[in-house]
Amino acid sequence: MSCSKRLTLKSMNPYIKAMEYAVRGPLVIRAAEIEKELKEGKKKPFDRVIRANIGDCQAVGQIPITFIRQVLALVLYPDLLCNTNFPEDAKERAKTILKGCAGSSIGSYTDSSGIEIIRKHCAEYIKNRDGIPADWQNIILGEGASSGIKTVLKLLINEIDGKRTGVMVPIPQYPLYSASISEFNMHLIGYYLDEATNWSLNISELERAVNEAKKCCKPRAIVVINPGNPTSQVLTRKNIEEIVRFAHKENLFLLADEVYQHNIYDPNSNFFSFKKVIMEMGPPYNQRELASFMSCSKGFMGECGFRGGYFEIVNLDPDVRTMFMKSVLALPSPNTPGQVVLDCVVNPLKKDDPSYELYEKERNFILESLKERAEMVYKAFNSCEGMSCNVVQGSMYAFPQIKLPPKAIEKAKSLNQCPSVFYCFQLLEQTGVCVVPGAGFGQVEGTYHFRTTILPQPEELKHMLNIFKTFHENFLAEYK
Amino acid sequence: MSCSKRLTLKSMNPYIKAMEYAVRGPLVIRAAEIEKELKEGKKKPFDRVIRANIGDCQAVGQIPITFIRQVLALVLYPDLLCNTNFPEDAKERAKTILKGCAGSSIGSYTDSSGIEIIRKHCAEYIKNRDGIPADWQNIILGEGASSGIKTVLKLLINEIDGKRTGVMVPIPQYPLYSASISEFNMHLIGYYLDEATNWSLNISELERAVNEAKKCCKPRAIVVINPGNPTSQVLTRKNIEEIVRFAHKENLFLLADEVYQHNIYDPNSNFFSFKKVIMEMGPPYNQRELASFMSCSKGFMGECGFRGGYFEIVNLDPDVRTMFMKSVLALPSPNTPGQVVLDCVVNPLKKDDPSYELYEKERNFILESLKERAEMVYKAFNSCEGMSCNVVQGSMYAFPQIKLPPKAIEKAKSLNQCPSVFYCFQLLEQTGVCVVPGAGFGQVEGTYHFRTTILPQPEELKHMLNIFKTFHENFLAEYK
Repeated sequence: MSCSKRLTLKSMNPYIKAMEYAVRGPLVIRAAEIEKELKEGKKKPFDRVIRANIGDCQAVGQIPITFIRQVLALVLYPDLLCNTNFPEDAKERAKTILKGCAGSSIGSYTDSSGIEIIRKHCAEYIKNRDGIPADWQNIILGEGASSGIKTVLKLLINEIDGKRTGVMVPIPQYPLYSASISEFNMHLIGYYLDEATNWSLNISELERAVNEAKKCCKPRAIVVINPGNPTSQVLTRKNIEEIVRFAHKENLFLLADEVYQHNIYDPNSNFFSFKKVIMEMGPPYNQRELASFMSCSKGFMGECGFRGGYFEIVNLDPDVRTMFMKSVLALPSPNTPGQVVLDCVVNPLKKDDPSYELYEKERNFILESLKERAEMVYKAFNSCEGMSCNVVQGSMYAFPQIKLPPKAIEKAKSLNQCPSVFYCFQLLEQTGVCVVPGAGFGQVEGTYHFRTTILPQPEELKHMLNIFKTFHENFLAEYK
Repeated sequence: MSCSKRLTLKSMNPYIKAMEYAVRGPLVIRAAEIEKELKEGKKKPFDRVIRANIGDCQAVGQIPITFIRQVLALVLYPDLLCNTNFPEDAKERAKTILKGCAGSSIGSYTDSSGIEIIRKHCAEYIKNRDGIPADWQNIILGEGASSGIKTVLKLLINEIDGKRTGVMVPIPQYPLYSASISEFNMHLIGYYLDEATNWSLNISELERAVNEAKKCCKPRAIVVINPGNPTSQVLTRKNIEEIVRFAHKENLFLLADEVYQHNIYDPNSNFFSFKKVIMEMGPPYNQRELASFMSCSKGFMGECGFRGGYFEIVNLDPDVRTMFMKSVLALPSPNTPGQVVLDCVVNPLKKDDPSYELYEKERNFILESLKERAEMVYKAFNSCEGMSCNVVQGSMYAFPQIKLPPKAIEKAKSLNQCPSVFYCFQLLEQTGVCVVPGAGFGQVEGTYHFRTTILPQPEELKHMLNIFKTFHENFLAEYK
């Protein structure tokens, strides 16, 4: 007797088959294999893999903020509330959070939208940031920003008059968007960011993209990532206003991915939230539907492992809002330690709190150091022949363009690879440096890029950039 | 100038509109309102709400396992590794886990399938439980069991020859299944559990359900919840074997929801995993595709807030497995504290570990007490006129049937409510006791039930059952 498989390649979900996620794709799998080979003593022209493929701060040496970890330890193991080595403000914070938990335990489920007191702190944070009030009941906590982005995108799924929902997404983009839009059977409307003007959003390009898309879908939303990922631009207020006007004209729901709002390095750049801009633009723009996303995985805290985050919904039709909140209730509550991390971020210490000084010192040290690294990366790539890199104004990445010689392009095509993939694989095999090919984010036809983080610690980053330069020169020489 | 809404009730995702989740539904929302009213000093015939609607152990007084919380505190705030108040085994455990994290920090992303060493401990746990080896590479960590159930269900989405995938689900069922199946546009094939034989799975009912369903869908999977939720039965080995034979005959993928595997109270019942049973049945059954789900939210630990859990996939076609694992890579990694909790559960202490005694004591105290409460609940309901309750063999719930007088049914219908909903709302308003109507889980037409947890602490539970009895008698008298 045999047992035929219920699921075969033919009968499984075709979408799962098609799924690709560059940030953790084949290159990263190969990087892990190489690490194992090195451990097993295999000889390589390098002694370690340098992972610059993912915005994973603490994996490459960033030190956690002491206060955040102290509050976590106190909340999770309240016996420590009697320990005199923990500062009073951390204890107060822990007690406040525990009081907000059912049964005063962090091991209980919370409301699906998160612990009420933390939602209120988020609202306070937004108010302080924007100078505009926020309603805590419009704030929903989640697992990082990803879960919220998916929750909001889902709200937009609908097929009207035989046309699927179209969602405008920047190219290059963060692959979470393309993956989710494809999973939800929506239509991705790519609009190209303008590399020549530091990856700004060119309104004529938005017009082109939306008009072309109308033939095959119903455009209903636009995603903007600010500061950019992978492109690291910080949008000017003027540019945001143009985008809002465009969204209004086309009646688009705004999704503002603002997870890098703390990561601004360029002294000429400021972060303006979409919420602040639409509110200050006045009617009719201040009635525009908007969702804004924030995460604990980025910023100065870089607590990726905790999956904390929130999103704010603004201006939803009251009936839609009711239905939406009802659907949120059907989700399991977000994990509680992630909510605790979020509280420490959105409800910062006051000047006379005992932990204030240390918190500020650690925070500023990280942000200052990231600023130096942003400049280091940008300068190093621009000093390479055949490479150009925009200013890293914010976020945690650089996305340089590489001019590849025709022979390299031919070679890549003979291997059935995008030339950017070929380049990155060569880099990995020869140097151990792991970055993500531009193909994973999207790029203008005939241009080639890669995304690197700026996260390795300064000495390691310097080392990486040196290796990179040598590799790049050799690569150009080989395929000249 | 006005701004028309992009999203209206008409244009929003119709599925989101239709979504209902009884466990956190309108009754639970009303319970929260009543709590606020009580706080504001409003007079009620009771002084507090008793929440017996959700399996949220620590919310109703269960004490966390000390060792789990110590390991968490150490991992999250490694400065404590020098603290002499923490036992050595907790420190060793914390160090092992930190060594498995990138950059030795719990703040880093982990592999999307979880930390390797914890996956290995899960495999060891399964092997010890079943006496049958498990491959750690088939174990995927997630956010509780819910995320895994959705991930596996997604794998089965496909429309072949115009027919959607049908998934067999027990009625009564846990609403996660109906919600996900509807979200994924699959077809729910309900099969009724047999209340007369303690909610066993009657094979002729499975036959009826699958044959009827074949007219409108392609049945491809069967979900079994063992121990049951909301029905608390523990399946006999013989019954599991029958189900496996049925699944084989119909070529169905098995989804075994085994999150209550530690919660067995009936001395005549044993937990048998589907994995163990199919393997011991030999060919062809030992080649049956299976996914088994486990959570940290239930059992003796009841750490719901941490959202830890895993699932094991067995016998997948190798090509399908490759594609599946690639799709898992596209998910963000599960939160790290939840993974730590899981490790403490699946990798229990050894006899000569310093924390062993306390861990065992705490664990057995909780399980023994739950056993007593299971009996208390079952007996109390059976002593009520017009109420019958099966033995609570396992899990954390009872699902009694209530015989409602025709006048009560009429009254409910005049309010456009299912009679079980009407009954539970009356109970809540008059006594403050919050349980979930049978309608939220599904019930045989013309029968009425509710689900209560057995989780309130013994004194509180006794109090609740007394209130319940009085309410029930009054209710019957009122509608006689």
